Amino acid sequence: MGEDIQKKFIRRKPIEENVDGIIDGLLLKDRTMLSRAITLIESNADRHKKTAEEMLQHLLPLSGDSIRIGITGVPGAGKSTFIESFGLLLCNKGHRVAVLAVDPSSTLHGGSILGDKTRMERLANHPNAFIRPSPSGGALGGVHRKTRETIIACEAAGYDVLLIETVGVGQSEVMVRGMVDFFMLLVLTGAGDELQGMKKGIMELADAVIVNKADGRNLDLAKKTQREYKQILHFLQPATKGWTTPALTCSALYQEGIEQVWETVLRYMKMTKESGQFWESRKMQAKEWLYAQIKEQLERSFFGDNKVKSLAPEVEKKVMNEEMTVAKASGLLFDAFYEK
Amino acid sequence: MGEDIQKKFIRRKPIEENVDGIIDGLLLKDRTMLSRAITLIESNADRHKKTAEEMLQHLLPLSGDSIRIGITGVPGAGKSTFIESFGLLLCNKGHRVAVLAVDPSSTLHGGSILGDKTRMERLANHPNAFIRPSPSGGALGGVHRKTRETIIACEAAGYDVLLIETVGVGQSEVMVRGMVDFFMLLVLTGAGDELQGMKKGIMELADAVIVNKADGRNLDLAKKTQREYKQILHFLQPATKGWTTPALTCSALYQEGIEQVWETVLRYMKMTKESGQFWESRKMQAKEWLYAQIKEQLERSFFGDNKVKSLAPEVEKKVMNEEMTVAKASGLLFDAFYEK
Repeated sequence: MGEDIQKKFIRRKPIEENVDGIIDGLLLKDRTMLSRAITLIESNADRHKKTAEEMLQHLLPLSGDSIRIGITGVPGAGKSTFIESFGLLLCNKGHRVAVLAVDPSSTLHGGSILGDKTRMERLANHPNAFIRPSPSGGALGGVHRKTRETIIACEAAGYDVLLIETVGVGQSEVMVRGMVDFFMLLVLTGAGDELQGMKKGIMELADAVIVNKADGRNLDLAKKTQREYKQILHFLQPATKGWTTPALTCSALYQEGIEQVWETVLRYMKMTKESGQFWESRKMQAKEWLYAQIKEQLERSFFGDNKVKSLAPEVEKKVMNEEMTVAKASGLLFDAFYEK
Repeated sequence: MGEDIQKKFIRRKPIEENVDGIIDGLLLKDRTMLSRAITLIESNADRHKKTAEEMLQHLLPLSGDSIRIGITGVPGAGKSTFIESFGLLLCNKGHRVAVLAVDPSSTLHGGSILGDKTRMERLANHPNAFIRPSPSGGALGGVHRKTRETIIACEAAGYDVLLIETVGVGQSEVMVRGMVDFFMLLVLTGAGDELQGMKKGIMELADAVIVNKADGRNLDLAKKTQREYKQILHFLQPATKGWTTPALTCSALYQEGIEQVWETVLRYMKMTKESGQFWESRKMQAKEWLYAQIKEQLERSFFGDNKVKSLAPEVEKKVMNEEMTVAKASGLLFDAFYEK
């Protein structure tokens, strides 16, 4: 058998048996290979889990050298236009930009915030960019569980700026805050009205508030909104110790003020790296990730237990109607769990 | 044996064997009996747990008819003076007021926020008041775990206003918010400076912000601070849907504005009871309590396991130094846990 045929043979082996091939592909910055690596990471099949874990263990030493940026905003704040504009700026500066999404709603609504790549067509076509649509299926919460692993794969493949987009659903912002270095909140003009509908505590997660659509007839209002946000931020604790969370304006559509956002990120990186906070925070994030993972697994095994599942609704109802104490109810559920 | 001697005999039985006696005592609104009931609830002894549970199951139908008020504030905001002043006002109106504390710091610093009853001597001496110092020992987190049960006992003993004080340590405010109907935040003058040091998200837990020490030369500044808080609150989401969180001023020391705080609570109660939100929220709190309890127990059994405890520091360190993936680390810990 000639060597070429042998090679072809190896390449055709199922992905889960060819970790070395994927790793080599990532080191060659092969986008297709990165896609396949992420598919392996996101797979819920038991036979893929061990392989994915092995692959990640190999990739881990190659990861970490990047800027991880979280981006959130109310619907209509122009997140995709901003990400495209911001991503293109960075790609043109020579950075390699990966865009990921944490979208716990995708399974609920059948859609996906990054499902449609055409939303950011220009960025998607740039050779330095990699856009990963969020998974369209899987359990709620499954998405974010794999985003951290996906970050490792992207970094190993040489992407040095990661943009992690999230919609404001559930606890997704808190999750994303826990996996990025810098977190930005995109808002629209009319701070007062908008903030009324904004999620609690979100302002205090942000390292920058960016008033988008500051263009044309909207410009004056955007400047006013910026002042309002500055005022509120003055009263709140900054997300990062020692950092004064700025309120900026930009127009993603006309690519104005985007450079300034990047300068803010760089200034933040410089400050947190000089103080050592950057590494400290990454270490803490890794630690918290470990414990979050363990807790999730504990809860999954308990609440996924058939006996617990069949008993839970009844005792829950009794507790809610004050017919049963919590101690009694939880005791009954633990009895059901251990009674094998 | 005469009946009297028999009675005496029964009274002398260890508390854990005399649930009926305690329950009878509570129904007679006997403060000493309430203290004993709470001691039983707080006991960590295994032999007390079953009895406490049984007692609570009996008390549960007698509880619930009260206003549960959470009170927090930065150190120096005058929480004890406020609680004394507020509590006396209510006692004089004929209410029966119980004061409890959630103080996760007590075990750390050896002290206790309510340890010294003399802090509120006048209230403590009022026949309508019951003040329970926070437990001085026990595991961190143990305190709040029992506060909910203590609430049930107090209500069964006829206390219709519960004041639950907390210092701003750890997650104590979030915990207390989850067990009360109305949550108030006590602050001092100088909103800007003070808020900078205030815990994230705390403003969004409050149903009222109260600027204390609005008296004498401090009055003008207090009014200014009140305006500042109003402005911030305008931008934030209210803790309770449909309720506009007010900023009030008062002087606990001179008993000014205290009546107005009570009127605010009553207005809130009226609104939430009319909308049904009051009952809805109590039901949700009971449900969340159940699940919090279960999760805590799951984590305690996992992280309290000797094999897990001996392995955890090592894998945690490796995860923090990016030498081991989270999946690998959590897999190792679960292996250790199940390897019996």
